[in-house]
Amino acid sequence: MQLPLGLSYRQGELWLTCPEGDNSTQQFRIRSILHEETTPFQHLMMLDTYDFGTALVLDGIIQTTAMDGFVYNEMIAHAPLSLKPRAEKVLIIGGGDLGAAREVLKYDNVQQVDMVEIDAAVVRACQRFLPEVAGSSNEPLDERLNIYYADGTEFVANTSTDYDVIIVDSSDPIGPAVELFSQPFYQNLKACLRSGGILSCQSLSPYYSMIMLRHIRDVLGIFFPVVETCQAVIPTYAGGLYSFTLASTEPLPNYLNAFVPDDVQYVSNQVLSSSFSFPPFLAQQLEEEEDQ
Amino acid sequence: MQLPLGLSYRQGELWLTCPEGDNSTQQFRIRSILHEETTPFQHLMMLDTYDFGTALVLDGIIQTTAMDGFVYNEMIAHAPLSLKPRAEKVLIIGGGDLGAAREVLKYDNVQQVDMVEIDAAVVRACQRFLPEVAGSSNEPLDERLNIYYADGTEFVANTSTDYDVIIVDSSDPIGPAVELFSQPFYQNLKACLRSGGILSCQSLSPYYSMIMLRHIRDVLGIFFPVVETCQAVIPTYAGGLYSFTLASTEPLPNYLNAFVPDDVQYVSNQVLSSSFSFPPFLAQQLEEEEDQ
Repeated sequence: MQLPLGLSYRQGELWLTCPEGDNSTQQFRIRSILHEETTPFQHLMMLDTYDFGTALVLDGIIQTTAMDGFVYNEMIAHAPLSLKPRAEKVLIIGGGDLGAAREVLKYDNVQQVDMVEIDAAVVRACQRFLPEVAGSSNEPLDERLNIYYADGTEFVANTSTDYDVIIVDSSDPIGPAVELFSQPFYQNLKACLRSGGILSCQSLSPYYSMIMLRHIRDVLGIFFPVVETCQAVIPTYAGGLYSFTLASTEPLPNYLNAFVPDDVQYVSNQVLSSSFSFPPFLAQQLEEEEDQ
Repeated sequence: MQLPLGLSYRQGELWLTCPEGDNSTQQFRIRSILHEETTPFQHLMMLDTYDFGTALVLDGIIQTTAMDGFVYNEMIAHAPLSLKPRAEKVLIIGGGDLGAAREVLKYDNVQQVDMVEIDAAVVRACQRFLPEVAGSSNEPLDERLNIYYADGTEFVANTSTDYDVIIVDSSDPIGPAVELFSQPFYQNLKACLRSGGILSCQSLSPYYSMIMLRHIRDVLGIFFPVVETCQAVIPTYAGGLYSFTLASTEPLPNYLNAFVPDDVQYVSNQVLSSSFSFPPFLAQQLEEEEDQ
Protein backbone atom coordinates (compact mmCIF):
# COMPACT_ATOMS: atom_id res chain seq x y z
CA MET A 1 0.00 0.00 0.00
CA GLN A 2 1.31 3.43 -0.94
CA LEU A 3 1.32 5.77 2.06
CA PRO A 4 -0.01 9.33 1.71
CA LEU A 5 2.37 12.24 1.10
CA GLY A 6 5.07 12.66 3.73
CA LEU A 7 4.25 9.52 5.70
CA SER A 8 6.57 6.55 6.08
CA TYR A 9 7.12 3.60 8.37
CA ARG A 10 10.34 3.32 10.38
CA GLN A 11 10.84 0.19 12.45
CA GLY A 12 7.10 -0.36 12.52
CA GLU A 13 6.31 3.22 13.57
CA LEU A 14 4.45 5.72 11.40
CA TRP A 15 6.19 9.11 10.96
CA LEU A 16 5.41 12.32 9.08
CA THR A 17 8.40 14.06 7.49
CA CYS A 18 7.96 17.80 6.84
CA PRO A 19 10.76 19.25 4.69
CA GLU A 20 11.96 22.85 5.11
CA GLY A 21 13.82 23.50 1.91
CA ASP A 22 16.00 20.69 0.55
CA ASN A 23 18.32 20.23 3.50
CA SER A 24 16.33 20.17 6.75
CA THR A 25 13.26 18.29 7.91
CA GLN A 26 11.16 17.86 11.01
CA GLN A 27 9.63 14.49 11.77
CA PHE A 28 6.66 13.71 13.96
CA ARG A 29 5.60 10.27 15.11
CA ILE A 30 1.99 9.57 14.19
CA ARG A 31 -0.52 7.54 16.17
CA SER A 32 -3.03 7.31 13.34
CA ILE A 33 -4.33 8.90 10.15
CA LEU A 34 -7.67 10.35 11.22
CA HIS A 35 -8.67 11.59 7.76
CA GLU A 36 -7.22 11.91 4.27
CA GLU A 37 -8.60 13.41 1.08
CA THR A 38 -7.52 15.14 -2.09
CA THR A 39 -9.55 18.32 -2.34
CA PRO A 40 -9.89 20.36 -5.57
CA PHE A 41 -7.04 22.51 -4.21
CA GLN A 42 -4.64 20.37 -2.20
CA HIS A 43 -3.89 17.15 -0.37
CA LEU A 44 -5.38 17.24 3.14
CA MET A 45 -4.73 15.03 6.15
CA MET A 46 -5.71 15.12 9.79
CA LEU A 47 -3.08 13.17 11.74
CA ASP A 48 -2.99 12.19 15.39
CA THR A 49 0.60 13.05 16.43
CA TYR A 50 2.19 11.87 19.66
CA ASP A 51 3.74 15.20 20.70
CA PHE A 52 1.30 17.81 19.36
CA GLY A 53 -2.12 16.13 19.25
CA THR A 54 -4.22 16.40 16.09
CA ALA A 55 -2.46 18.13 13.18
CA LEU A 56 -3.85 19.66 9.99
CA VAL A 57 -1.46 18.72 7.17
CA LEU A 58 -1.79 20.32 3.72
CA ASP A 59 0.36 19.04 0.84
CA GLY A 60 2.51 17.23 3.40
CA ILE A 61 3.23 20.27 5.59
CA ILE A 62 1.87 20.74 9.12
CA GLN A 63 -0.29 23.88 9.16
CA THR A 64 -1.55 23.85 12.73
CA THR A 65 -1.93 21.47 15.65
CA ALA A 66 -4.09 21.05 18.71
CA MET A 67 -1.12 21.86 20.96
CA ASP A 68 0.39 24.99 19.38
CA GLY A 69 -2.27 26.34 17.00
CA PHE A 70 -3.15 29.06 19.50
CA VAL A 71 0.28 30.67 19.15
CA TYR A 72 -0.21 31.40 15.46
CA ASN A 73 -3.88 32.34 15.72
CA GLU A 74 -3.49 34.61 18.74
CA MET A 75 -0.56 36.42 17.18
CA ILE A 76 -2.12 37.03 13.75
CA ALA A 77 -5.42 38.18 15.32
CA HIS A 78 -4.47 40.06 18.49
CA ALA A 79 -1.45 41.86 17.05
CA PRO A 80 -3.88 44.04 15.01
CA LEU A 81 -7.11 43.74 17.06
CA SER A 82 -5.61 44.59 20.45
CA LEU A 83 -4.64 47.96 18.93
CA LYS A 84 -8.10 48.37 17.36
CA PRO A 85 -10.45 46.98 20.02
CA ARG A 86 -13.29 49.08 18.61
CA ALA A 87 -13.00 47.46 15.19
CA GLU A 88 -16.41 46.48 13.84
CA LYS A 89 -15.68 44.85 10.49
CA VAL A 90 -12.88 42.34 10.05
CA LEU A 91 -11.83 40.46 6.91
CA ILE A 92 -9.92 37.18 7.10
CA ILE A 93 -8.35 35.80 3.93
CA GLY A 94 -7.78 32.07 4.36
CA GLY A 95 -8.00 30.99 7.97
CA GLY A 96 -9.76 27.74 7.15
CA ASP A 97 -8.90 26.24 10.53
CA LEU A 98 -11.27 28.88 12.02
CA GLY A 99 -8.70 29.71 14.70
CA ALA A 100 -8.11 33.32 13.65
CA ALA A 101 -11.87 33.91 13.45
CA ARG A 102 -12.31 32.58 16.98
CA GLU A 103 -9.71 35.01 18.29
CA VAL A 104 -11.27 37.97 16.43
CA LEU A 105 -14.68 37.12 17.83
CA LYS A 106 -13.35 37.61 21.38
CA TYR A 107 -13.76 41.36 20.81
CA ASP A 108 -17.30 42.40 21.71
CA ASN A 109 -17.28 45.39 19.38
CA VAL A 110 -16.69 43.23 16.32
CA GLN A 111 -19.96 43.03 14.41
CA GLN A 112 -18.97 41.39 11.15
CA VAL A 113 -16.21 38.91 10.33
CA ASP A 114 -15.96 37.97 6.66
CA MET A 115 -13.75 34.92 6.19
CA VAL A 116 -12.78 34.01 2.63
CA GLU A 117 -11.40 30.47 2.41
CA ILE A 118 -10.85 28.84 -0.96
CA ASP A 119 -11.09 25.26 0.30
CA ALA A 120 -14.29 24.25 2.08
CA ALA A 121 -12.73 20.87 2.87
CA VAL A 122 -10.25 22.51 5.27
CA VAL A 123 -13.07 24.08 7.29
CA ARG A 124 -15.04 20.82 7.35
CA ALA A 125 -12.05 18.76 8.47
CA CYS A 126 -11.03 21.23 11.19
CA GLN A 127 -14.58 21.47 12.54
CA ARG A 128 -14.75 17.69 12.71
CA PHE A 129 -11.24 16.76 13.91
CA LEU A 130 -9.62 19.85 15.40
CA PRO A 131 -11.99 21.47 17.93
CA GLU A 132 -8.97 22.74 19.92
CA VAL A 133 -8.39 25.20 17.07
CA ALA A 134 -11.75 25.44 15.27
CA GLY A 135 -13.99 25.33 18.34
CA SER A 136 -16.60 22.73 19.17
CA SER A 137 -18.57 21.57 16.14
CA ASN A 138 -21.58 21.02 18.38
CA GLU A 139 -22.06 24.73 18.86
CA PRO A 140 -23.46 26.86 16.05
CA LEU A 141 -21.01 29.27 14.47
CA ASP A 142 -21.04 32.80 15.85
CA GLU A 143 -23.71 34.80 14.00
CA ARG A 144 -21.17 37.53 13.29
CA LEU A 145 -19.05 35.17 11.16
CA ASN A 146 -19.71 34.90 7.41
CA ILE A 147 -17.70 32.25 5.60
CA TYR A 148 -17.27 32.69 1.84
CA TYR A 149 -15.80 29.73 0.01
CA ALA A 150 -14.10 31.75 -2.67
CA ASP A 151 -10.78 32.95 -4.04
CA GLY A 152 -9.44 35.64 -1.71
CA THR A 153 -7.87 37.64 -4.54
CA GLU A 154 -11.19 37.83 -6.39
CA PHE A 155 -13.09 38.68 -3.21
CA VAL A 156 -10.92 41.69 -2.37
CA ALA A 157 -10.98 42.84 -6.01
CA ASN A 158 -14.76 43.05 -5.88
CA THR A 159 -15.85 43.86 -2.33
CA SER A 160 -17.17 47.30 -1.49
CA THR A 161 -16.90 46.84 2.29
CA ASP A 162 -14.48 48.99 4.28
CA TYR A 163 -12.77 46.85 6.91
CA ASP A 164 -11.16 48.03 10.13
CA VAL A 165 -8.79 45.07 10.28
CA ILE A 166 -7.71 42.62 7.58
CA ILE A 167 -5.97 39.35 8.42
CA VAL A 168 -4.19 37.38 5.70
CA ASP A 169 -3.98 33.91 7.20
CA SER A 170 -2.69 32.06 4.18
CA SER A 171 -0.69 28.91 3.76
CA ASP A 172 2.85 29.32 2.43
CA PRO A 173 3.44 30.68 -1.10
CA ILE A 174 3.19 27.34 -2.81
CA GLY A 175 -0.02 25.72 -4.03
CA PRO A 176 -3.29 27.66 -3.80
CA ALA A 177 -1.83 30.56 -1.80
CA VAL A 178 0.70 31.85 -4.37
CA GLU A 179 -1.47 34.80 -5.43
CA LEU A 180 -1.78 35.90 -1.80
CA PHE A 181 1.82 37.10 -1.92
CA SER A 182 1.47 39.26 -5.05
CA GLN A 183 1.39 43.01 -5.52
CA PRO A 184 -2.12 43.33 -7.06
CA PHE A 185 -3.55 41.45 -4.09
CA TYR A 186 -2.02 43.85 -1.56
CA GLN A 187 -3.16 46.82 -3.63
CA ASN A 188 -6.74 45.55 -3.43
CA LEU A 189 -6.37 44.91 0.31
CA LYS A 190 -5.33 48.50 0.82
CA ALA A 191 -8.38 49.64 -1.11
CA CYS A 192 -10.79 47.82 1.21
CA LEU A 193 -8.98 48.74 4.45
CA ARG A 194 -10.38 51.78 6.23
CA SER A 195 -7.89 54.62 6.70
CA GLY A 196 -6.06 53.99 9.97
CA GLY A 197 -6.99 50.30 9.85
CA ILE A 198 -4.43 47.54 10.30
CA LEU A 199 -3.49 44.70 7.99
CA SER A 200 -1.88 41.60 9.51
CA CYS A 201 -0.36 38.73 7.55
CA GLN A 202 1.78 35.69 8.21
CA SER A 203 5.23 36.33 6.78
CA LEU A 204 7.04 32.99 7.17
CA SER A 205 10.21 31.98 9.02
CA PRO A 206 12.91 34.62 9.51
CA TYR A 207 15.52 31.86 9.61
CA TYR A 208 14.44 29.83 6.59
CA SER A 209 12.52 32.34 4.44
CA MET A 210 14.10 35.76 4.97
CA ILE A 211 14.00 36.55 1.23
CA MET A 212 10.25 35.96 1.11
CA LEU A 213 9.73 37.87 4.35
CA ARG A 214 11.60 40.85 2.91
CA HIS A 215 9.54 40.57 -0.28
CA ILE A 216 6.32 40.77 1.74
CA ARG A 217 7.63 43.80 3.63
CA ASP A 218 8.71 45.49 0.40
CA VAL A 219 5.38 44.94 -1.35
CA LEU A 220 3.46 46.17 1.71
CA GLY A 221 5.79 49.17 1.83
CA ILE A 222 4.59 50.23 -1.64
CA PHE A 223 1.09 50.76 -0.28
CA PHE A 224 1.55 51.46 3.43
CA PRO A 225 3.89 53.93 5.13
CA VAL A 226 4.00 51.77 8.28
CA VAL A 227 5.24 48.16 8.00
CA GLU A 228 6.26 46.32 11.20
CA THR A 229 7.25 42.69 11.69
CA CYS A 230 6.86 40.70 14.90
CA GLN A 231 7.83 37.16 15.86
CA ALA A 232 6.53 34.19 17.80
CA VAL A 233 7.78 30.68 18.45
CA ILE A 234 5.75 27.87 16.88
CA PRO A 235 7.49 24.59 17.70
CA THR A 236 5.98 22.57 14.84
CA TYR A 237 7.44 24.99 12.27
CA ALA A 238 11.08 24.34 11.31
CA GLY A 239 13.48 26.49 13.31
CA GLY A 240 10.69 27.48 15.69
CA LEU A 241 10.76 31.19 14.95
CA TYR A 242 7.90 32.54 12.84
CA SER A 243 6.94 36.04 11.73
CA PHE A 244 3.87 38.16 11.20
CA THR A 245 3.87 41.52 9.46
CA LEU A 246 1.52 44.41 10.15
CA ALA A 247 0.85 47.33 7.83
CA SER A 248 -1.07 50.55 8.36
CA THR A 249 -1.37 54.11 7.20
CA GLU A 250 -0.69 55.25 10.77
CA PRO A 251 2.00 54.39 13.33
CA LEU A 252 1.11 51.47 15.56
CA PRO A 253 0.26 52.47 19.16
CA ASN A 254 2.23 51.09 22.10
CA TYR A 255 1.28 47.48 22.88
CA LEU A 256 1.72 48.07 26.60
CA ASN A 257 -1.53 50.08 26.40
CA ALA A 258 -3.33 47.72 24.04
CA PHE A 259 -6.53 45.85 24.90
CA VAL A 260 -5.83 42.12 25.16
CA PRO A 261 -8.82 39.87 25.91
CA ASP A 262 -8.66 37.71 29.03
CA ASP A 263 -9.06 34.27 27.53
CA VAL A 264 -5.73 33.94 25.72
CA GLN A 265 -2.75 31.64 26.25
CA TYR A 266 0.13 33.08 24.26
CA VAL A 267 -0.25 36.84 23.98
CA SER A 268 -0.11 39.51 26.65
CA ASN A 269 0.67 43.21 26.47
CA GLN A 270 4.28 42.44 27.33
CA VAL A 271 4.60 39.52 24.89
CA LEU A 272 3.10 41.55 22.03
CA SER A 273 5.38 44.48 22.82
CA SER A 274 8.45 42.22 23.03
CA SER A 275 7.56 40.40 19.83
CA PHE A 276 8.73 43.37 17.77
CA SER A 277 12.26 43.28 19.30
CA PHE A 278 14.35 41.35 16.80
CA PRO A 279 17.93 40.32 17.53
CA PRO A 280 20.31 42.73 15.78
CA PHE A 281 21.40 40.23 13.11
CA LEU A 282 17.78 39.60 12.08
CA ALA A 283 16.78 43.26 12.36
CA GLN A 284 19.60 44.04 9.96
CA GLN A 285 18.48 41.36 7.50
CA LEU A 286 14.91 42.66 7.69
CA GLU A 287 16.02 46.14 6.67
CA GLU A 288 18.20 45.09 3.74
CA GLU A 289 16.92 45.85 0.25
CA GLU A 290 15.20 42.98 -1.52
CA ASP A 291 17.71 42.80 -4.36
CA GLN A 292 20.80 42.62 -2.16
CA MET B 1 30.17 0.08 6.56
CA GLN B 2 28.34 1.03 9.73
CA LEU B 3 27.60 4.76 9.84
CA PRO B 4 28.31 6.73 13.03
CA LEU B 5 25.52 7.46 15.51
CA GLY B 6 22.57 9.34 14.06
CA LEU B 7 23.74 9.29 10.46
CA SER B 8 21.95 7.50 7.63
CA TYR B 9 21.73 7.56 3.86
CA ARG B 10 18.44 8.45 2.17
CA GLN B 11 18.32 8.24 -1.61
CA GLY B 12 22.07 8.67 -1.76
CA GLU B 13 22.11 11.68 0.58
CA LEU B 14 23.69 11.68 4.04
CA TRP B 15 21.42 12.93 6.86
CA LEU B 16 21.79 13.38 10.61
CA THR B 17 18.71 12.56 12.68
CA CYS B 18 18.51 14.23 16.10
CA PRO B 19 15.73 12.83 18.28
CA GLU B 20 13.88 15.00 20.80
CA GLY B 21 12.22 12.46 23.05
CA ASP B 22 10.71 9.39 21.38
CA ASN B 23 8.25 11.09 19.08
CA SER B 24 9.90 14.02 17.29
CA THR B 25 13.14 14.44 15.38
CA GLN B 26 14.99 17.06 13.41
CA GLN B 27 17.02 16.02 10.39
CA PHE B 28 19.86 17.88 8.75
CA ARG B 29 21.42 17.04 5.39
CA ILE B 30 25.17 16.54 5.70
CA ARG B 31 27.79 17.44 3.13
CA SER B 32 30.56 15.47 4.85
CA ILE B 33 31.86 14.04 8.11
CA LEU B 34 34.78 16.30 8.97
CA HIS B 35 35.84 14.42 12.09
CA GLU B 36 34.68 11.53 14.24
CA GLU B 37 36.04 10.06 17.46
CA THR B 38 34.98 8.30 20.62
CA THR B 39 36.43 10.26 23.51
CA PRO B 40 36.70 8.89 27.07
CA PHE B 41 33.42 10.68 27.74
CA GLN B 42 31.25 10.65 24.63
CA HIS B 43 30.93 10.16 20.89
CA LEU B 44 32.03 13.30 19.04
CA MET B 45 31.52 14.37 15.43
CA MET B 46 32.13 17.51 13.47
CA LEU B 47 29.71 17.52 10.51
CA ASP B 48 29.46 19.87 7.56
CA THR B 49 25.71 20.57 7.32
CA TYR B 50 24.04 22.21 4.32
CA ASP B 51 21.86 24.65 6.26
CA PHE B 52 23.92 25.49 9.36
CA GLY B 53 27.57 25.06 8.39
CA THR B 54 29.86 23.05 10.66
CA ALA B 55 28.10 21.37 13.59
CA LEU B 56 29.48 19.91 16.83
CA VAL B 57 27.57 16.69 17.51
CA LEU B 58 27.92 14.88 20.85
CA ASP B 59 26.30 11.46 21.32
CA GLY B 60 24.30 12.11 18.15
CA ILE B 61 22.83 15.47 19.25
CA ILE B 62 23.75 18.82 17.68
CA GLN B 63 25.32 21.01 20.37
CA THR B 64 26.23 24.09 18.38
CA THR B 65 26.75 25.16 14.78
CA ALA B 66 28.66 27.77 12.85
CA MET B 67 25.41 29.51 11.90
CA ASP B 68 23.52 29.73 15.20
CA GLY B 69 26.10 29.06 17.94
CA PHE B 70 26.25 32.77 18.73
CA VAL B 71 22.64 32.79 19.93
CA TYR B 72 23.33 30.33 22.73
CA ASN B 73 26.74 31.72 23.66
CA GLU B 74 25.67 35.36 23.67
CA MET B 75 22.61 34.61 25.80
CA ILE B 76 24.35 32.47 28.43
CA ALA B 77 27.23 34.98 28.74
CA HIS B 78 25.67 38.43 28.30
CA ALA B 79 22.53 37.74 30.32
CA PRO B 80 24.71 37.77 33.49
CA LEU B 81 27.74 39.83 32.36
CA SER B 82 25.80 42.77 30.91
CA LEU B 83 24.39 43.27 34.42
CA LYS B 84 27.86 42.85 36.00
CA PRO B 85 30.17 44.64 33.54
CA ARG B 86 32.71 45.19 36.32
CA ALA B 87 33.03 41.46 36.98
CA GLU B 88 36.67 40.43 37.30
CA LYS B 89 36.53 36.68 37.89
CA VAL B 90 34.28 34.41 35.86
CA LEU B 91 33.87 30.64 36.10
CA ILE B 92 32.57 28.61 33.16
CA ILE B 93 31.58 24.99 33.78
CA GLY B 94 31.64 23.12 30.47
CA GLY B 95 31.71 25.45 27.51
CA GLY B 96 34.12 23.25 25.53
CA ASP B 97 33.20 24.98 22.25
CA LEU B 98 34.92 28.10 23.72
CA GLY B 99 32.00 30.27 22.59
CA ALA B 100 30.89 31.36 26.06
CA ALA B 101 34.49 32.22 27.00
CA ARG B 102 34.83 34.37 23.89
CA GLU B 103 31.73 36.34 24.85
CA VAL B 104 32.89 36.79 28.45
CA LEU B 105 36.28 38.06 27.26
CA LYS B 106 34.55 40.92 25.44
CA TYR B 107 34.35 42.68 28.85
CA ASP B 108 37.53 44.63 29.48
CA ASN B 109 37.20 44.42 33.26
CA VAL B 110 37.29 40.65 33.25
CA GLN B 111 40.72 39.57 34.51
CA GLN B 112 40.33 35.84 35.02
CA VAL B 113 38.14 33.29 33.26
CA ASP B 114 38.40 29.75 34.63
CA MET B 115 36.83 27.27 32.25
CA VAL B 116 36.36 23.72 33.49
CA GLU B 117 35.65 21.30 30.65
CA ILE B 118 35.72 17.57 31.27
CA ASP B 119 36.46 16.58 27.68
CA ALA B 120 39.62 18.01 26.10
CA ALA B 121 38.62 16.44 22.78
CA VAL B 122 35.69 18.88 22.48
CA VAL B 123 37.97 21.88 22.80
CA ARG B 124 40.48 20.43 20.33
CA ALA B 125 37.82 19.65 17.74
CA CYS B 126 36.13 23.05 18.05
CA GLN B 127 39.44 24.89 17.75
CA ARG B 128 40.25 22.92 14.63
CA PHE B 129 36.89 22.74 12.86
CA LEU B 130 34.60 25.41 14.33
CA PRO B 131 36.40 28.79 14.35
CA GLU B 132 33.04 30.57 13.93
CA VAL B 133 32.30 29.56 17.53
CA ALA B 134 35.71 28.86 19.09
CA GLY B 135 37.64 31.65 17.41
CA SER B 136 40.59 31.33 15.07
CA SER B 137 42.99 28.58 16.11
CA ASN B 138 45.83 30.61 14.61
CA GLU B 139 45.59 33.20 17.37
CA PRO B 140 46.87 32.38 20.86
CA LEU B 141 44.18 32.00 23.51
CA ASP B 142 43.45 35.13 25.54
CA GLU B 143 45.87 35.26 28.48
CA ARG B 144 42.99 35.80 30.86
CA LEU B 145 41.52 32.36 30.01
CA ASN B 146 42.56 29.30 32.06
CA ILE B 147 41.22 25.99 30.81
CA TYR B 148 41.05 23.13 33.32
CA TYR B 149 40.31 19.71 31.88
CA ALA B 150 38.53 18.41 34.92
CA ASP B 151 35.18 17.39 36.38
CA GLY B 152 33.19 20.56 37.06
CA THR B 153 31.54 19.13 40.17
CA GLU B 154 34.93 18.34 41.74
CA PHE B 155 36.35 21.72 40.72
CA VAL B 156 33.61 23.70 42.44
CA ALA B 157 33.78 21.45 45.52
CA ASN B 158 37.44 22.34 45.95
CA THR B 159 38.03 25.86 44.62
CA SER B 160 38.65 28.70 47.02
CA THR B 161 38.12 31.43 44.41
CA ASP B 162 35.19 33.84 44.74
CA TYR B 163 33.67 34.43 41.32
CA ASP B 164 31.58 37.42 40.24
CA VAL B 165 29.78 35.43 37.56
CA ILE B 166 29.40 31.67 37.06
CA ILE B 167 28.19 30.19 33.77
CA VAL B 168 27.05 26.57 33.63
CA ASP B 169 27.32 25.77 29.94
CA SER B 170 26.68 22.05 30.11
CA SER B 171 25.31 19.59 27.63
CA ASP B 172 21.91 18.10 28.42
CA PRO B 173 21.41 15.93 31.52
CA ILE B 174 22.41 12.70 29.85
CA GLY B 175 25.95 11.38 29.59
CA PRO B 176 28.79 13.26 31.31
CA ALA B 177 26.64 16.24 32.33
CA VAL B 178 24.18 14.44 34.63
CA GLU B 179 25.85 15.66 37.83
CA LEU B 180 25.63 19.25 36.61
CA PHE B 181 21.91 19.20 37.32
CA SER B 182 22.15 17.96 40.93
CA GLN B 183 21.60 19.74 44.25
CA PRO B 184 25.12 19.29 45.72
CA PHE B 185 26.61 20.87 42.60
CA TYR B 186 24.46 24.00 42.89
CA GLN B 187 25.21 24.22 46.60
CA ASN B 188 28.93 24.31 45.80
CA LEU B 189 28.32 26.87 43.05
CA LYS B 190 26.62 29.14 45.55
CA ALA B 191 29.59 28.77 47.89
CA CYS B 192 32.07 30.04 45.28
CA LEU B 193 29.84 32.84 43.95
CA ARG B 194 30.49 36.26 45.49
CA SER B 195 27.51 37.80 47.25
CA GLY B 196 25.53 39.73 44.66
CA GLY B 197 27.11 37.72 41.86
CA ILE B 198 25.05 36.06 39.14
CA LEU B 199 24.87 32.42 38.12
CA SER B 200 23.69 31.60 34.59
CA CYS B 201 22.90 28.13 33.28
CA GLN B 202 21.28 26.56 30.25
CA SER B 203 17.91 25.16 31.28
CA LEU B 204 16.69 23.26 28.19
CA SER B 205 13.60 23.61 26.02
CA PRO B 206 10.44 25.03 27.61
CA TYR B 207 8.36 23.09 25.09
CA TYR B 208 10.06 19.70 25.31
CA SER B 209 11.69 19.73 28.78
CA MET B 210 9.48 21.81 31.06
CA ILE B 211 9.78 19.27 33.90
CA MET B 212 13.58 19.50 33.86
CA LEU B 213 13.44 23.29 33.55
CA ARG B 214 11.22 23.45 36.61
CA HIS B 215 13.57 21.10 38.44
CA ILE B 216 16.51 23.42 37.71
CA ARG B 217 14.51 26.42 38.92
CA ASP B 218 13.46 24.59 42.07
CA VAL B 219 16.97 23.47 42.97
CA LEU B 220 18.36 26.96 42.34
CA GLY B 221 15.54 28.33 44.47
CA ILE B 222 16.84 26.36 47.46
CA PHE B 223 20.05 28.39 47.42
CA PHE B 224 19.13 31.68 45.77
CA PRO B 225 16.23 34.05 46.55
CA VAL B 226 16.23 35.33 42.95
CA VAL B 227 15.68 32.85 40.09
CA GLU B 228 14.70 34.20 36.66
CA THR B 229 14.35 32.35 33.35
CA CYS B 230 14.78 33.87 29.90
CA GLN B 231 14.38 32.50 26.41
CA ALA B 232 15.99 32.59 22.98
CA VAL B 233 15.34 30.90 19.66
CA ILE B 234 17.97 28.41 18.51
CA PRO B 235 16.78 26.90 15.22
CA THR B 236 18.89 23.72 15.43
CA TYR B 237 17.26 22.77 18.74
CA ALA B 238 13.90 20.99 18.46
CA GLY B 239 10.99 23.37 18.79
CA GLY B 240 13.33 26.36 18.43
CA LEU B 241 12.65 27.83 21.86
CA TYR B 242 15.41 27.41 24.45
CA SER B 243 15.82 28.67 27.99
CA PHE B 244 18.51 30.01 30.30
CA THR B 245 18.07 30.50 34.01
CA LEU B 246 19.79 33.11 36.16
CA ALA B 247 20.14 33.01 39.93
CA SER B 248 21.40 35.59 42.39
CA THR B 249 21.17 36.74 45.97
CA GLU B 250 19.98 40.15 44.74
CA PRO B 251 17.25 41.24 42.30
CA LEU B 252 18.45 41.53 38.69
CA PRO B 253 18.78 45.14 37.49
CA ASN B 254 16.82 46.37 34.46
CA TYR B 255 18.32 45.14 31.18
CA LEU B 256 17.44 48.38 29.44
CA ASN B 257 20.28 49.95 31.48
CA ALA B 258 22.69 47.02 31.11
CA PHE B 259 26.08 47.23 29.41
CA VAL B 260 26.03 45.19 26.18
CA PRO B 261 29.30 45.06 24.20
CA ASP B 262 29.23 46.32 20.62
CA ASP B 263 30.39 43.23 18.78
CA VAL B 264 27.34 41.00 19.27
CA GLN B 265 24.78 39.61 16.84
CA TYR B 266 21.89 38.29 18.90
CA VAL B 267 21.61 40.26 22.13
CA SER B 268 20.75 43.90 22.69
CA ASN B 269 19.35 45.71 25.71
CA GLN B 270 15.87 45.33 24.26
CA VAL B 271 16.31 41.66 23.30
CA LEU B 272 17.67 40.76 26.75
CA SER B 273 14.85 42.65 28.44
CA SER B 274 12.21 41.01 26.23
CA SER B 275 13.71 37.56 26.71
CA PHE B 276 12.22 37.36 30.22
CA SER B 277 8.64 37.93 28.92
CA PHE B 278 7.15 34.46 28.63
CA PRO B 279 3.77 33.82 27.05
CA PRO B 280 1.17 33.37 29.80
CA PHE B 281 0.78 29.62 29.24
CA LEU B 282 4.54 29.06 29.67
CA ALA B 283 4.84 31.53 32.55
CA GLN B 284 2.16 29.53 34.33
CA GLN B 285 3.96 26.23 33.71
CA LEU B 286 7.22 27.75 34.99
CA GLU B 287 5.59 28.70 38.27
CA GLU B 288 3.93 25.35 38.94
CA GLU B 289 5.34 23.18 41.69
CA GLU B 290 7.70 20.44 40.59
CA ASP B 291 5.52 17.62 41.87
CA GLN B 292 2.33 18.79 40.20
